[in-house]
Amino acid sequence: MGANSPKNDLYLKALRGESVSRPPVWMMRQAGRYLPEFMELKEKYDFFTRCQTPELASEITVQPLRRYGMDAAILFSDILVVPQAMNIDVEMRPGVGPFLPNPIRKASDLDRVIVPDIEESLGYVLDAISLTLEKLDNSVPLIGFAGSPWTILCYCVQGQGSKSFDVAKGLCFSDPKTAHALLQKITDTTIAYLKAKVAAGVHAVQVFDSWGGMLSPEDYKEFSMQYMQQIVDALKDLAPVILFGKGCWFALGEMADSGASALGVDWTCSARNARYLSKGKITLQGNYDPSRLLSPPSRIKADVWQMIDAFGKDRYIVNLGHGILPNIPIDHAKAFIDAVKEYPG
Amino acid sequence: MGANSPKNDLYLKALRGESVSRPPVWMMRQAGRYLPEFMELKEKYDFFTRCQTPELASEITVQPLRRYGMDAAILFSDILVVPQAMNIDVEMRPGVGPFLPNPIRKASDLDRVIVPDIEESLGYVLDAISLTLEKLDNSVPLIGFAGSPWTILCYCVQGQGSKSFDVAKGLCFSDPKTAHALLQKITDTTIAYLKAKVAAGVHAVQVFDSWGGMLSPEDYKEFSMQYMQQIVDALKDLAPVILFGKGCWFALGEMADSGASALGVDWTCSARNARYLSKGKITLQGNYDPSRLLSPPSRIKADVWQMIDAFGKDRYIVNLGHGILPNIPIDHAKAFIDAVKEYPG
Repeated sequence: MGANSPKNDLYLKALRGESVSRPPVWMMRQAGRYLPEFMELKEKYDFFTRCQTPELASEITVQPLRRYGMDAAILFSDILVVPQAMNIDVEMRPGVGPFLPNPIRKASDLDRVIVPDIEESLGYVLDAISLTLEKLDNSVPLIGFAGSPWTILCYCVQGQGSKSFDVAKGLCFSDPKTAHALLQKITDTTIAYLKAKVAAGVHAVQVFDSWGGMLSPEDYKEFSMQYMQQIVDALKDLAPVILFGKGCWFALGEMADSGASALGVDWTCSARNARYLSKGKITLQGNYDPSRLLSPPSRIKADVWQMIDAFGKDRYIVNLGHGILPNIPIDHAKAFIDAVKEYPG
Repeated sequence: MGANSPKNDLYLKALRGESVSRPPVWMMRQAGRYLPEFMELKEKYDFFTRCQTPELASEITVQPLRRYGMDAAILFSDILVVPQAMNIDVEMRPGVGPFLPNPIRKASDLDRVIVPDIEESLGYVLDAISLTLEKLDNSVPLIGFAGSPWTILCYCVQGQGSKSFDVAKGLCFSDPKTAHALLQKITDTTIAYLKAKVAAGVHAVQVFDSWGGMLSPEDYKEFSMQYMQQIVDALKDLAPVILFGKGCWFALGEMADSGASALGVDWTCSARNARYLSKGKITLQGNYDPSRLLSPPSRIKADVWQMIDAFGKDRYIVNLGHGILPNIPIDHAKAFIDAVKEYPG
């Protein structure tokens, strides 16, 4: 926990399962391309400059809060700074997205993969946390995040985004020994990285398993959940841990037993299904379809109120079911946040 | 039903819910790029030539049966022949996949969209069915297929494949009237198309809702299920209908009540979850992860036997959870089919 507790503690209360007057709200990728003030910085500085310059990363982190007053900030960064620190090249190619020119495809490729010293290789993230905490001035909590080991493996092996991550899965299924060795290195790095973030002052950590939904329930246990479990075990006594698995409805039961403080769910999982599958007790976070923010603001407001009614105001964090899209009008994003604040209870 | 019943009736028995000695097996995209004999034809003839030439389409359809002896054939074609017949341009671009240069983005774009005469615009598919039935000589049943109206809309509006189909969803959520008008035109065309296929002799029809899993349960009802329901209502007394919704675990209950004879499931839905969600009575089809065919053949065999044990041998059709991938070794595909035939019961 940070040395100081933030004045707005709705988010932390929800993570602890305490009763609240209304649920807290933030949006995945809230520091992002739908904001004109973000686009101004994007035009001036490339992706890694934005991530690696604490002044820029902290500015981008607080931009959405100035505009909308969410109940939590999430540090602007990217899940791929982890493989980059592990000596795996990562590029951002316009029109392609992440591109890893030297992917891991066989056992010998692991020789060059390191478990790095965090201060040395990712110190810029820790500096960005310090600067962001100064700017937030104890107003709201700051969330740190990392990709799940499985999701990071997907990029490291496939070499870029994919609809099926067939190459990544191919390695797991034809050479599981190499896949597990890579997953363990990513896990070790991620644990050290998240511990350093907590030491730098973030109030909670979220693990994004963006591609967990590509796996069968059995394979999910073997290639994703057991590594997320290691992360939860190592972090849960230091800070609340939130697990978000896109498309991972089938694993909500195991995630609920992991020791995590909350679980993210996407919009294919109704509130009722999510409560049932997660055994009814753990705090849930989600799950508005990001594309639904293209609906008229009046519809957004009605949907949000219905969503809160369905999940219940306690043990619930209002969010989208995935990151906000670049084409969302800013007043539609405002309608989403305002609807939560105006929830009649 | 075709005038003659096929000698191997395992597939049709499973669709009728009758007890079988072992479950039938086929593979989605079994007439495809993992087969060297398919690649030979692919090098000589472009995509639409292969679809539109009955001699080629029927040859490609029977290729996998000659090699492996599946229990059903599925006519080689593509879901995008439907929008093409509706006067929406469809191209296949190397490295991109389907590309629709004039996508539907607003109400006035609908003016040029027609509900075509099937004989006139898709007669080549009906000819391919006749020729395939001759080649099959009543050995196994022949399946005809179409995309779901929602999935066809995704391509017509987005203009190409996508991870999120954000443009397509954007139209639905910002201008639902136009989206529903397009969906109804696609539905009317699809019903006429599938009726013509049944009249030409296919023994069953499968509707592929490849992108249904992009929608929330509520939006699924509005933008996908109600149109698939129209298709089932129009077809079910003419031939068995199979609904396959990729990622649509949340809709299995409604699909089970639709009047369809069977439901396809993907590999994220365990046999137990699939039976529970579909209310325990309807025939299910699936659900091996196509990437799992990269495992050693001995593992594939063990997995298939375990899968049959989990689903049960009756009211079950062994299949993949999505189309077979181009990089699957031919002896691994053989291991999958043979495992079913060797199932000890």
